Amino acid sequence: MSENLARKLLLDHLVSGDLTPGGEIALRMDQALLQDVLGTLVMLELEAMEVDRVVTNPSVQYIDHGLVQSDEINADAHLFLKSACERFGVIYSGPGNGISHPVHMERFGIPGASLIGSDSHTVAAGSLGMLAIGAGGVEVALAMAGEPLYITCPEIFGIELTGTLPDWVSAKDVVLEMLRRHGTSGATNAILEYHGPGLACLSAMDRHVIANMGAELGATTSVFPSDGAVEKFLAARGRAADFKALSADTNCSYDRSDRIDLSTLVPLIAKPQSPGNVVPVSEIAGEPIYQAYIGSSANPSYRDFAMAAEIVAGERAADGVSLDINPSSRQVLQALVSEGKLGSLIAAGARIHQAGCNGCIGMGQAPATGRNSIRTVPRNFPGRSGTREDAVFLASPETCAASALAGVITDPRTLQRAHPSIAEPETMPMNKAGFVFPKEGHRPDLYRTEHTPLLPDFDTYPDRIEVPVLLTLGDDVSTDDIIPAGRVLPLWSNVFATADHAFEQVDDSYADRAREDVAAGSGHAIVAGKNYGQGSSRENAALVPRIIGLRLVIAESFARIHWQNLASFGVLPLVFRGMRPDFRIGDTIVIEGIREQLDAGRTVAAEIRRADGSTEPLELDHALSERQVDIMMGGGVINWIAKRRDNSTRKQSA
Amino acid sequence: MSENLARKLLLDHLVSGDLTPGGEIALRMDQALLQDVLGTLVMLELEAMEVDRVVTNPSVQYIDHGLVQSDEINADAHLFLKSACERFGVIYSGPGNGISHPVHMERFGIPGASLIGSDSHTVAAGSLGMLAIGAGGVEVALAMAGEPLYITCPEIFGIELTGTLPDWVSAKDVVLEMLRRHGTSGATNAILEYHGPGLACLSAMDRHVIANMGAELGATTSVFPSDGAVEKFLAARGRAADFKALSADTNCSYDRSDRIDLSTLVPLIAKPQSPGNVVPVSEIAGEPIYQAYIGSSANPSYRDFAMAAEIVAGERAADGVSLDINPSSRQVLQALVSEGKLGSLIAAGARIHQAGCNGCIGMGQAPATGRNSIRTVPRNFPGRSGTREDAVFLASPETCAASALAGVITDPRTLQRAHPSIAEPETMPMNKAGFVFPKEGHRPDLYRTEHTPLLPDFDTYPDRIEVPVLLTLGDDVSTDDIIPAGRVLPLWSNVFATADHAFEQVDDSYADRAREDVAAGSGHAIVAGKNYGQGSSRENAALVPRIIGLRLVIAESFARIHWQNLASFGVLPLVFRGMRPDFRIGDTIVIEGIREQLDAGRTVAAEIRRADGSTEPLELDHALSERQVDIMMGGGVINWIAKRRDNSTRKQSA
Repeated sequence: MSENLARKLLLDHLVSGDLTPGGEIALRMDQALLQDVLGTLVMLELEAMEVDRVVTNPSVQYIDHGLVQSDEINADAHLFLKSACERFGVIYSGPGNGISHPVHMERFGIPGASLIGSDSHTVAAGSLGMLAIGAGGVEVALAMAGEPLYITCPEIFGIELTGTLPDWVSAKDVVLEMLRRHGTSGATNAILEYHGPGLACLSAMDRHVIANMGAELGATTSVFPSDGAVEKFLAARGRAADFKALSADTNCSYDRSDRIDLSTLVPLIAKPQSPGNVVPVSEIAGEPIYQAYIGSSANPSYRDFAMAAEIVAGERAADGVSLDINPSSRQVLQALVSEGKLGSLIAAGARIHQAGCNGCIGMGQAPATGRNSIRTVPRNFPGRSGTREDAVFLASPETCAASALAGVITDPRTLQRAHPSIAEPETMPMNKAGFVFPKEGHRPDLYRTEHTPLLPDFDTYPDRIEVPVLLTLGDDVSTDDIIPAGRVLPLWSNVFATADHAFEQVDDSYADRAREDVAAGSGHAIVAGKNYGQGSSRENAALVPRIIGLRLVIAESFARIHWQNLASFGVLPLVFRGMRPDFRIGDTIVIEGIREQLDAGRTVAAEIRRADGSTEPLELDHALSERQVDIMMGGGVINWIAKRRDNSTRKQSA
Repeated sequence: MSENLARKLLLDHLVSGDLTPGGEIALRMDQALLQDVLGTLVMLELEAMEVDRVVTNPSVQYIDHGLVQSDEINADAHLFLKSACERFGVIYSGPGNGISHPVHMERFGIPGASLIGSDSHTVAAGSLGMLAIGAGGVEVALAMAGEPLYITCPEIFGIELTGTLPDWVSAKDVVLEMLRRHGTSGATNAILEYHGPGLACLSAMDRHVIANMGAELGATTSVFPSDGAVEKFLAARGRAADFKALSADTNCSYDRSDRIDLSTLVPLIAKPQSPGNVVPVSEIAGEPIYQAYIGSSANPSYRDFAMAAEIVAGERAADGVSLDINPSSRQVLQALVSEGKLGSLIAAGARIHQAGCNGCIGMGQAPATGRNSIRTVPRNFPGRSGTREDAVFLASPETCAASALAGVITDPRTLQRAHPSIAEPETMPMNKAGFVFPKEGHRPDLYRTEHTPLLPDFDTYPDRIEVPVLLTLGDDVSTDDIIPAGRVLPLWSNVFATADHAFEQVDDSYADRAREDVAAGSGHAIVAGKNYGQGSSRENAALVPRIIGLRLVIAESFARIHWQNLASFGVLPLVFRGMRPDFRIGDTIVIEGIREQLDAGRTVAAEIRRADGSTEPLELDHALSERQVDIMMGGGVINWIAKRRDNSTRKQSA
């Protein structure tokens, strides 16, 4: 049977399940990447799971988010991560090496391999014909420990590219066109597979741009064939041996299809405050800007920076415009220096920042209040720039550089000049500065500080619970409501310190009351409305409340990833059968014979005990698989992994 | 009479007083520089003084401290400062242009001119034969408004340099030798004047290194002759026309003298936690390091970075060592790129940061807890790096680069290789990117946000006060105790928000109680011990308590600058004649006929009214000059300047 490339990659990694969209499948993960903000918890989980050496190969820990180091917390975290890398056999890519996604592609990406990463833009590696999936931290920890990744089987959404990009239009405009057509949920539970003759004008790094922002379309991942462009990319980095040609079979089919004639595209821009808010640049040309920002994993290539350099060469950014250059990797920075491009940017007034994620995730370069910032980054959600009242526009390097010169949003086609032709150097610099490779037989202790306490032991789930309701919540409570980012982010590697801030924007007495109930020996329950746990995949939104006694969440419905995280950390997630009854703080929920009920079917019978002593029956449903019931009842994945290893006859070397 | 150069410069700028060390002299200030953290208050003071255009020429506002932009506060402050520059006729040097001191020297320094700056390292411009003095913000505002600077006449401390620096020993080692010999108060109330044949081996930028850290010796400033090295420096920047030869007369004398034979110097290092804690590098060689940091105004030259680049070229920083490069200016960065030096640093694993002060003042690159950081910066006071428990060593670029390679503190003479010879490019790049020059006739309104409210009006001092004592304090209360830095620093441009934090580490009810007394119409007094107001010169330590009602401080003794700041903002500073009586919160102090008493002599008669209704006489002294009494009684310098202008017949253009 003739298969598309995405299905070939899925089949190659399928451990269990069948490839029917909507069902659960388990996939073998060959490689893993971590970024630092989420990496610390993953390492603590590996330690708690008593993992000796990780199985994914390579596994790489990138230090790319927490680079500002305003106090000791980031630097201490880097030391912790470096020690954990040596401990578990993970490659450490130090601060200054650059952003995980382009660096991984440059150094470790292999056509046909699968990659799991604790960052939603991990999907960018689809540019090399990899099966690359972003996931929550604990799922990455499990994969690193050798477990498969469980996901809902996606449908395959084929995008045929025809024609050639016009001058001044580039890869960013292609993915912005996808967002213009399909919106930010247009590829939910789908793999985007790009194919067709239009690929000929897109380099591997151009494809990275498009695959990266597949995350903004909601896609499970994006896939490109591994062809001559990939071969050239690998060869320029001394890695020709890693090349393998991969493509869809002729006459294969897709679950959904679309076609883009590249020759018809124009420069596009996403207006605040969503990547889906796309219009032609010409429509808003003339809007004054405060900042033009080049960088991030959404436009990481030498070409992207060199294009900006060629556009501003010999000129100056408009008075008062902050032209911020954020090199994506040490290699790209080095090539920009040696090819004379960085000099052009500096002379034009640019601020050159260290290689890393930086302002893309609000770590520096926050724009002035209410002033327009035009950026090559992937996202412009409100406040993501670090500025409360921000106005971030997403566009190509061409559009950003042209706008920097003019001081207003500018369609680069209106620059009265020839379109610069950018050739990537034949050979890219590839020294190993900034990397630390693990040594066999070297097992240092973790370097821990007060900011990186070990995770506590997790008790197994009791067969009977009687837990007070501590919070009664409405619809759409997000993981941001549960565990804030921003000023709490530096505390994330310390679950106990994070716990002080759990739900603080909803009810700042929650943590204290939860701890009182733990002291009283009971734990607690939370009752919520629809779509509970929406937003980011942060696992600490399940882990941290668990540590201060959360045993049960009953909601009208759950966001999928948070639901999974709850079960993974030993919290029972249940939904109301029928109408949600009225709950009051002080009510208690009692469930008896839990294991038996979960094993027997989808229903769970419970009881509400009101403060006045009266009781009411409560009918609930669960959607846990047998595997998840095992994990949940055992106290979560950490215990589950440890137990499986104890049961295994295989002995680890000490 | 044969004069040394420092006295010549003082005489050239003397407005009043005579040059007897210890007496007050007034000096004409030709130029002014501001940095951003202190610049916002200066601009608000100019606005409150109703200054139309500043008189110092040039006056330059540098954006070099607040570059991290983790939220909107820094960026909003930059916009405020840019608008204030246009409003008052100040040159705006935007973020990314670099550190005020080297940039000012490169662009605007003129031998023989005087310079006042709101930063203690302003003294670095003595390298060009300037009379350059760091001062509190309000003194800079006054100078910009055309007033002279009042200082205690310093003695002149002549340092004769002989011989030539050995290989691997550089300018930083010269000033570390000064600190080794004389300590951190070794040049208090003195101007250091360097002279002698040893100068021949020191470029103008080498002299900047030495003059800069004169601040660490407590010097009023440092002075170098303007000779061939200065001529070469200016010529390389297209500014040969600004050169003027200046030197001491032959056979001149000095109040104090010392001599350094440069050929006998060895690589030196200041250990934590003081710049005065100097030993030979060889004495502590082998200590492991976490970080090697090149940058800051204490080693800002092309040579300093290029030397580090040559040392690491073709090698790699030791595993896990953070090699942080902080270019001092856009020009230096551009030259490092074009001369191939930046490429060597990147390839060796360096992190390249934007041009600015950065980690030198704890804005990024904070080291890990307790780990050694070796830096070319001027100061290593506890916590200045941003890390609570830090361990910062101060050394030359040679020593820092050698240590980065080895991963341990390393005497660069032990590198088995030839000493690199570094030649600065004949012509340094000097385009005007990042500068905004004021236009005549353009007077925009200040761009203000909630973070930059206008200063309130200041009422004149009443002739009778009856004020409750709100705080009774011990000895050595510092300006840090009065107005904290750290997390309060971003609020400094908002005096009302800052007021919430006044004295919070001493008594966190102070601000609330002070405001209650203002509401009740009384204002308040503070009673303190010896050395009140020691520490930094921050003017808001006087201004902010004044705004919430402080009218009177009675202390056993005052730190000089804070005493002056109190009078400048309309607070009466008095000292006890004889023993300090017991004071209790709730006591009230009454002074009658204040103006008459201050004019009549040095004594001020007051009365304590106890909470029980009893009264006691209180004998106090004042040390205010006639000018200061005028300023204080008129409500402070802001009113004083406005009144002088109103009295003047000169009309300003609108």
